[in-house]
Amino acid sequence: MMTNGLRPGVHCIAATPFLPDESLDLASVGALMDYLIAGGCDGALVLGVLGEADRLSDDERDQVLATALERGGGKLQISVGVTHHSTRVTKARADAAQAAGAAAVMVSPPSGSSAGPALKEHFKQIAADLTIPLIVQDHPTSSGVKMPVEFIASLYEFLPPGSVCKLEDPPTAVKMNKLRDAEPGYQIFGGLGGVSLLHELDAGSAGAMTGFAVVEGLVEIVSLHRNGDRSGARAAYERTLPLLVFEAQPGAGVALRKEILRRRGAIAHATVRQPAPTPDAFALNLLDDLLRSYATDSVV
Amino acid sequence: MMTNGLRPGVHCIAATPFLPDESLDLASVGALMDYLIAGGCDGALVLGVLGEADRLSDDERDQVLATALERGGGKLQISVGVTHHSTRVTKARADAAQAAGAAAVMVSPPSGSSAGPALKEHFKQIAADLTIPLIVQDHPTSSGVKMPVEFIASLYEFLPPGSVCKLEDPPTAVKMNKLRDAEPGYQIFGGLGGVSLLHELDAGSAGAMTGFAVVEGLVEIVSLHRNGDRSGARAAYERTLPLLVFEAQPGAGVALRKEILRRRGAIAHATVRQPAPTPDAFALNLLDDLLRSYATDSVV
Amino acid sequence: MMTNGLRPGVHCIAATPFLPDESLDLASVGALMDYLIAGGCDGALVLGVLGEADRLSDDERDQVLATALERGGGKLQISVGVTHHSTRVTKARADAAQAAGAAAVMVSPPSGSSAGPALKEHFKQIAADLTIPLIVQDHPTSSGVKMPVEFIASLYEFLPPGSVCKLEDPPTAVKMNKLRDAEPGYQIFGGLGGVSLLHELDAGSAGAMTGFAVVEGLVEIVSLHRNGDRSGARAAYERTLPLLVFEAQPGAGVALRKEILRRRGAIAHATVRQPAPTPDAFALNLLDDLLRSYATDSVV
Amino acid sequence: MMTNGLRPGVHCIAATPFLPDESLDLASVGALMDYLIAGGCDGALVLGVLGEADRLSDDERDQVLATALERGGGKLQISVGVTHHSTRVTKARADAAQAAGAAAVMVSPPSGSSAGPALKEHFKQIAADLTIPLIVQDHPTSSGVKMPVEFIASLYEFLPPGSVCKLEDPPTAVKMNKLRDAEPGYQIFGGLGGVSLLHELDAGSAGAMTGFAVVEGLVEIVSLHRNGDRSGARAAYERTLPLLVFEAQPGAGVALRKEILRRRGAIAHATVRQPAPTPDAFALNLLDDLLRSYATDSVV
Repeated sequence: MMTNGLRPGVHCIAATPFLPDESLDLASVGALMDYLIAGGCDGALVLGVLGEADRLSDDERDQVLATALERGGGKLQISVGVTHHSTRVTKARADAAQAAGAAAVMVSPPSGSSAGPALKEHFKQIAADLTIPLIVQDHPTSSGVKMPVEFIASLYEFLPPGSVCKLEDPPTAVKMNKLRDAEPGYQIFGGLGGVSLLHELDAGSAGAMTGFAVVEGLVEIVSLHRNGDRSGARAAYERTLPLLVFEAQPGAGVALRKEILRRRGAIAHATVRQPAPTPDAFALNLLDDLLRSYATDSVV
Repeated sequence: MMTNGLRPGVHCIAATPFLPDESLDLASVGALMDYLIAGGCDGALVLGVLGEADRLSDDERDQVLATALERGGGKLQISVGVTHHSTRVTKARADAAQAAGAAAVMVSPPSGSSAGPALKEHFKQIAADLTIPLIVQDHPTSSGVKMPVEFIASLYEFLPPGSVCKLEDPPTAVKMNKLRDAEPGYQIFGGLGGVSLLHELDAGSAGAMTGFAVVEGLVEIVSLHRNGDRSGARAAYERTLPLLVFEAQPGAGVALRKEILRRRGAIAHATVRQPAPTPDAFALNLLDDLLRSYATDSVV
Repeated sequence: MMTNGLRPGVHCIAATPFLPDESLDLASVGALMDYLIAGGCDGALVLGVLGEADRLSDDERDQVLATALERGGGKLQISVGVTHHSTRVTKARADAAQAAGAAAVMVSPPSGSSAGPALKEHFKQIAADLTIPLIVQDHPTSSGVKMPVEFIASLYEFLPPGSVCKLEDPPTAVKMNKLRDAEPGYQIFGGLGGVSLLHELDAGSAGAMTGFAVVEGLVEIVSLHRNGDRSGARAAYERTLPLLVFEAQPGAGVALRKEILRRRGAIAHATVRQPAPTPDAFALNLLDDLLRSYATDSVV
Repeated sequence: MMTNGLRPGVHCIAATPFLPDESLDLASVGALMDYLIAGGCDGALVLGVLGEADRLSDDERDQVLATALERGGGKLQISVGVTHHSTRVTKARADAAQAAGAAAVMVSPPSGSSAGPALKEHFKQIAADLTIPLIVQDHPTSSGVKMPVEFIASLYEFLPPGSVCKLEDPPTAVKMNKLRDAEPGYQIFGGLGGVSLLHELDAGSAGAMTGFAVVEGLVEIVSLHRNGDRSGARAAYERTLPLLVFEAQPGAGVALRKEILRRRGAIAHATVRQPAPTPDAFALNLLDDLLRSYATDSVV
């Protein structure tokens, strides 16, 4: 384990639980941390895309982070998404998160920006004086911003030690392999629901940073691979893939994952903030079938 | 004048002034209100696109609104942008703004939404219990959302009395004419830097809701048109048009407008929050030339 | 089997083979048809997205269609993509395809259009006088156009008998289920690389219309499911899924699929028209591994 | 005048005239060339965005170009848009256009590409062996591709002598000034309906390449400016600006311009290919008013 960095393994992107009236359910934030610890996660990242970060007020953000740190902080490395349109506000969020005890902060390019000197300066300003790792999120689907390997590599020199690229621009394993060549310093994690996790690990990824709800599935794949049992990892990956693929479909993810978390007792309600799609009976039936198959296969 | 609605005329989209270190300059918020009053504006809308609303923290939003209400509230109708990805947070912002004394709240569709039942429900929830007008902002360039005339018209039935459409989907005058037919209840204002203001007034617009910095130019056009002097309004529009067009260019607006406001003493600094483009010497020379021409033409 | 419609089963989206200098390789078009017949496909759709249709001249389009009809037409139902920005040109292409003996024509909404009266009229004009089925392609990733279930259903009344929706807007199975309720007349096929094929069949899809290169894998899944062996279909789906997922990654597909087709002797060269990404050594190694695993698993 | 390049001045983006049934109206292509000659244009560019190039078949493209060359070629420099998704097809179009006698070819980045090595190679391949100028079209609104000044400048070294940047990324004058510094070799023209033409000329633009229908207005502005009468140019620009702005509104342009051309006898019908917006009675009334005002002002 590195002294000043994220542990290789699984850092779950944590959902933000709500009560049925869509107000914050801080008790479930705590319960979710327990669930992630029990599932074998190394860390939790709050206030990411799956955490519905853009549907929270600043005050709610603070409450979620504080609760996660308090409840999970001893056993999990708690990272936090701090993306904002303004450099100044992003930096203020990052500094506050560091002061509060976060293990790392994640920054995605502001929508409307593009890979060039202005965006580079944005990252540079945020990184100034930061001592915890900065996670560069490369997820064009949510940011709308394409960052070439060369651009991501060029940021590394001014980022804090142990900084990370959460690489979610497919084909991910291929881009990870290129980024490792261009800048070996980065610790790289995969996301995108874990659908390419096996190949990402083959490409040198340190693990998964994604919101897949059956976390022990991710943990098993990563552990086996890290321990050199590639064929075991492959078997675990293949067994989990139907569920990984189903959860990762655009337009389905957050509510389905909350439903799984609810069924497993990790959170009290599957409520998502509106406007957002919610699964119908047909979708829930498909989910039942997939969870049943997964459980059966796992036993075998 | 309506008792419960926005005054026809000019409601300036107010810039958010910053000190050189990008911190809030509340003194200049106050000075800007004085400037808008002196320029003959009927209202000011804070925390719109031009107000760099998406580059502020929630706490800063509150300070800007409170200062604008305190300093401008007696003489200007103060409206406020409350757009957020979550229905719940948007509603909370709208309710707080009403309680604080705002004259109206403006809501743009969340990015990623589309004109359909879910977006309609979003507006309906926000409007519930609101007694001040809701301004539906139809600005696809910033929201990414296209709203057909029929959809905008269908919202009207559950909006508070005096509600408004800020129609910024070109060709604006043509769409305004259609919306007036589809739902005569709306009060319609134009935006988009005022570049089509004359034709928008011809189409029945109640005035301008835009951030053009030389506000007396907008006031003159709208006043003449409202008083039935269409040829006078046309002359004023044509005299102002070179400056309207220059300011309205994408990629230039906010910083150029702040520079004009600074030169005219309305705010102390032209600082914009990063990352954002800032004008170079060439752009400032063009601006000098346009302001000089405008001043000369106005004298004649 | 319907007399006037597409056969349920697998209609492969055919790649367009090129020589190393990127000129058309018509001999390989023929060989590809043989490959699809040998693999058990029911049909082939030429000039789709995977067929690099937007990188061909009109004359080349004609040659590809003629060759596919000549070589595959006896045993495969040959459909053809005819999407174009103009209603008139789309209609001319559709009429010519019907006259040449195509089994169906596929139309995607022109980029920049939106689900509304103008787009409905576009489909209506194209469908006029057409007697072969029209395939409505619902693939927002390539078209940029979101079509709600209600809109797609509303097109059905003026489409030719046996018309089809190629539904590729995730979560696909859930949307298919809704479309079946809204308009049971449509024959529905899935695409998107087949990654959700099992659930799409559960939702009533008639089969797969996608470019996955190991076509016998698709055929096996669909056949088992159609014959009522759902657990066999599930096993086949799960065995194929790692390869389905790998091929379906955005930014990888066409060149990787051509490489598989080349290795299997279906086409002479894996050349894609530039500008387009091509796989590096690392990507090809991943592909080797996946193909090897798939072959091994299939034996077992 | 340069021996091997485009004449500074006005190169009108030519509309493609259709009969009421949307078939090509080649007689009107000829009449339009006469109109542009009579209006004092230096050149005509066929098959651009305003020419509805993406709504034509390849065969129709050939007919339009041949007719324009035959009828206008003696007096106008005829350029042609050759943009296509494939490098190979773009190059074939460019080579054919050169062989047919075109004065220059215009290429816009394929949609979905981005400023980087692959796009640079695209331009390089097209430029190989070309002896007529290549016009790099920088119009993010239609291409979706942002090209920084440095990228555009980097293309110049392999482009044919006399090559051009048609710069339509606002603020245009500011970007032109930067491009002139970065690569003085380019001849730069403005587009975007001419709304910033005065400032573009101030920034060193060689003239206008746009589809504004009242071409003598553009010719007057450019001529006066080129002859050193900047205040005359400014007066002409300001007189024309209301009409420039009206025509340039997104969602209005092509059909309105065809209507003006029809009224002035340049083409027989204002038909545009569907699907496309067409002006309603209200829009035509606004146009009447603007044309009347422009005529009156011009007399004075």
